[in-house]
Amino acid sequence: MSTFVTVIGLAAAVCTTGANLPQLKKAWTTGQTDDISLNMLLVLVCGLALWVAYGVLKADIIIILANGISLILIGGLLYLKVREIRG
Amino acid sequence: MSTFVTVIGLAAAVCTTGANLPQLKKAWTTGQTDDISLNMLLVLVCGLALWVAYGVLKADIIIILANGISLILIGGLLYLKVREIRG
Repeated sequence: MSTFVTVIGLAAAVCTTGANLPQLKKAWTTGQTDDISLNMLLVLVCGLALWVAYGVLKADIIIILANGISLILIGGLLYLKVREIRG
Repeated sequence: MSTFVTVIGLAAAVCTTGANLPQLKKAWTTGQTDDISLNMLLVLVCGLALWVAYGVLKADIIIILANGISLILIGGLLYLKVREIRG
Protein backbone atom coordinates (compact mmCIF):
# COMPACT_ATOMS: atom_id res chain seq x y z
CA MET A 1 0.00 0.00 0.00
CA SER A 2 2.77 2.39 0.97
CA THR A 3 4.64 1.68 -2.30
CA PHE A 4 1.41 2.22 -4.27
CA VAL A 5 0.89 5.61 -2.58
CA THR A 6 4.50 6.60 -3.34
CA VAL A 7 4.06 5.63 -7.02
CA ILE A 8 0.87 7.77 -7.21
CA GLY A 9 2.75 10.70 -5.66
CA LEU A 10 5.70 10.30 -8.02
CA ALA A 11 3.40 10.04 -11.07
CA ALA A 12 1.59 13.18 -9.87
CA ALA A 13 4.89 15.05 -9.47
CA VAL A 14 6.17 13.94 -12.89
CA CYS A 15 2.92 15.10 -14.55
CA THR A 16 2.62 18.52 -12.87
CA THR A 17 6.33 19.24 -13.44
CA GLY A 18 6.46 17.73 -16.95
CA ALA A 19 3.35 19.67 -18.03
CA ASN A 20 5.53 22.78 -18.19
CA LEU A 21 7.68 21.29 -20.98
CA PRO A 22 5.13 21.51 -23.87
CA GLN A 23 4.19 25.03 -22.72
CA LEU A 24 7.81 26.23 -22.69
CA LYS A 25 8.44 24.53 -26.07
CA LYS A 26 5.36 26.21 -27.57
CA ALA A 27 6.33 29.67 -26.28
CA TRP A 28 9.94 29.15 -27.44
CA THR A 29 9.04 28.03 -30.99
CA THR A 30 6.22 30.54 -31.61
CA GLY A 31 7.72 33.43 -29.63
CA GLN A 32 4.13 34.21 -28.60
CA THR A 33 3.16 34.65 -24.96
CA ASP A 34 0.32 37.22 -25.23
CA ASP A 35 -2.33 34.88 -23.80
CA ILE A 36 -0.19 33.83 -20.84
CA SER A 37 -0.84 35.88 -17.70
CA LEU A 38 2.23 37.72 -16.33
CA ASN A 39 0.62 37.76 -12.87
CA MET A 40 0.18 33.98 -13.04
CA LEU A 41 3.89 33.54 -13.82
CA LEU A 42 5.02 35.92 -11.06
CA VAL A 43 2.83 34.33 -8.36
CA LEU A 44 3.81 30.85 -9.59
CA VAL A 45 7.54 31.63 -9.35
CA CYS A 46 7.02 32.80 -5.74
CA GLY A 47 4.95 29.70 -4.94
CA LEU A 48 7.46 27.26 -6.47
CA ALA A 49 10.34 28.94 -4.63
CA LEU A 50 8.36 28.55 -1.38
CA TRP A 51 7.75 24.85 -2.22
CA VAL A 52 11.53 24.35 -2.69
CA ALA A 53 12.13 26.06 0.70
CA TYR A 54 9.46 23.81 2.23
CA GLY A 55 11.13 20.73 0.72
CA VAL A 56 14.51 21.80 2.11
CA LEU A 57 13.04 22.38 5.60
CA LYS A 58 11.29 19.00 5.49
CA ALA A 59 14.33 17.30 3.86
CA ASP A 60 11.96 15.92 1.16
CA ILE A 61 13.94 15.32 -2.03
CA ILE A 62 10.82 14.70 -4.17
CA ILE A 63 9.31 18.09 -3.26
CA ILE A 64 12.66 19.82 -3.88
CA LEU A 65 13.23 18.14 -7.28
CA ALA A 66 9.67 18.46 -8.63
CA ASN A 67 9.32 22.12 -7.69
CA GLY A 68 12.94 23.01 -8.46
CA ILE A 69 12.61 21.74 -12.04
CA SER A 70 9.21 23.47 -12.37
CA LEU A 71 10.81 26.68 -11.10
CA ILE A 72 13.47 26.52 -13.84
CA LEU A 73 10.87 25.82 -16.57
CA ILE A 74 8.46 28.55 -15.37
CA GLY A 75 11.46 30.87 -15.01
CA GLY A 76 12.20 30.24 -18.71
CA LEU A 77 8.59 31.03 -19.59
CA LEU A 78 8.73 34.23 -17.52
CA TYR A 79 11.90 35.23 -19.40
CA LEU A 80 10.13 34.75 -22.76
CA LYS A 81 7.08 36.70 -21.49
CA VAL A 82 9.15 39.65 -20.23
CA ARG A 83 11.21 39.66 -23.44
CA GLU A 84 8.00 39.90 -25.48
CA ILE A 85 6.55 42.68 -23.30
CA ARG A 86 9.75 44.73 -23.62
CA GLY A 87 9.70 44.11 -27.37
CA MET B 1 10.09 25.49 13.88
CA SER B 2 7.32 23.07 12.94
CA THR B 3 4.77 25.92 12.78
CA PHE B 4 7.16 27.96 10.62
CA VAL B 5 7.53 25.04 8.19
CA THR B 6 3.74 24.63 8.03
CA VAL B 7 3.31 28.35 7.30
CA ILE B 8 5.86 28.12 4.45
CA GLY B 9 4.02 25.09 3.04
CA LEU B 10 0.65 26.82 3.28
CA ALA B 11 2.01 29.99 1.64
CA ALA B 12 3.48 27.83 -1.14
CA ALA B 13 0.15 26.05 -1.67
CA VAL B 14 -1.81 29.32 -1.71
CA CYS B 15 0.60 30.82 -4.30
CA THR B 16 0.75 27.84 -6.70
CA THR B 17 -3.03 27.35 -6.52
CA GLY B 18 -3.88 31.08 -6.55
CA ALA B 19 -1.60 31.68 -9.55
CA ASN B 20 -4.25 30.01 -11.72
CA LEU B 21 -6.79 32.74 -10.94
CA PRO B 22 -5.25 35.60 -13.01
CA GLN B 23 -4.65 33.14 -15.89
CA LEU B 24 -8.27 31.97 -15.89
CA LYS B 25 -9.52 35.58 -15.58
CA LYS B 26 -7.33 36.65 -18.53
CA ALA B 27 -8.50 33.78 -20.75
CA TRP B 28 -12.13 34.39 -19.74
CA THR B 29 -12.09 38.14 -20.45
CA THR B 30 -10.04 38.04 -23.67
CA GLY B 31 -11.40 34.72 -24.97
CA GLN B 32 -7.85 34.11 -26.26
CA THR B 33 -5.99 30.90 -25.45
CA ASP B 34 -3.85 30.45 -28.61
CA ASP B 35 -0.54 30.75 -26.74
CA ILE B 36 -1.54 28.26 -24.03
CA SER B 37 -0.39 24.70 -24.74
CA LEU B 38 -3.22 22.14 -24.93
CA ASN B 39 -0.75 19.37 -24.04
CA MET B 40 0.29 21.34 -20.95
CA LEU B 41 -3.36 21.56 -19.83
CA LEU B 42 -4.06 17.87 -20.47
CA VAL B 43 -0.95 16.64 -18.61
CA LEU B 44 -1.62 19.13 -15.79
CA VAL B 45 -5.21 17.91 -15.34
CA CYS B 46 -3.91 14.31 -15.06
CA GLY B 47 -1.19 15.40 -12.61
CA LEU B 48 -3.55 17.41 -10.40
CA ALA B 49 -6.06 14.53 -10.31
CA LEU B 50 -3.20 12.22 -9.22
CA TRP B 51 -2.23 14.74 -6.51
CA VAL B 52 -5.81 14.72 -5.19
CA ALA B 53 -5.74 10.89 -5.16
CA TYR B 54 -2.39 11.03 -3.34
CA GLY B 55 -3.84 13.47 -0.79
CA VAL B 56 -6.83 11.18 -0.20
CA LEU B 57 -4.57 8.13 0.25
CA LYS B 58 -2.34 10.06 2.68
CA ALA B 59 -5.37 11.73 4.35
CA ASP B 60 -3.66 15.12 3.81
CA ILE B 61 -6.32 17.84 3.62
CA ILE B 62 -3.86 20.54 2.43
CA ILE B 63 -2.79 18.47 -0.59
CA ILE B 64 -6.42 17.63 -1.39
CA LEU B 65 -7.61 21.25 -1.13
CA ALA B 66 -4.70 22.92 -2.95
CA ASN B 67 -4.75 20.49 -5.86
CA GLY B 68 -8.54 20.11 -5.93
CA ILE B 69 -9.00 23.87 -6.34
CA SER B 70 -6.19 23.98 -8.95
CA LEU B 71 -7.91 21.13 -10.80
CA ILE B 72 -11.17 23.12 -10.99
CA LEU B 73 -9.36 26.27 -12.20
CA ILE B 74 -7.23 24.40 -14.79
CA GLY B 75 -10.36 22.50 -15.83
CA GLY B 76 -11.99 25.88 -16.55
CA LEU B 77 -8.97 26.93 -18.60
CA LEU B 78 -9.08 23.63 -20.54
CA TYR B 79 -12.78 24.26 -21.27
CA LEU B 80 -11.97 27.72 -22.69
CA LYS B 81 -9.09 26.25 -24.74
CA VAL B 82 -11.19 23.44 -26.23
CA ARG B 83 -14.05 25.89 -26.93
CA GLU B 84 -11.64 28.13 -28.87
CA ILE B 85 -10.15 25.19 -30.83
CA ARG B 86 -13.63 23.98 -31.82
CA GLY B 87 -14.50 27.56 -32.80
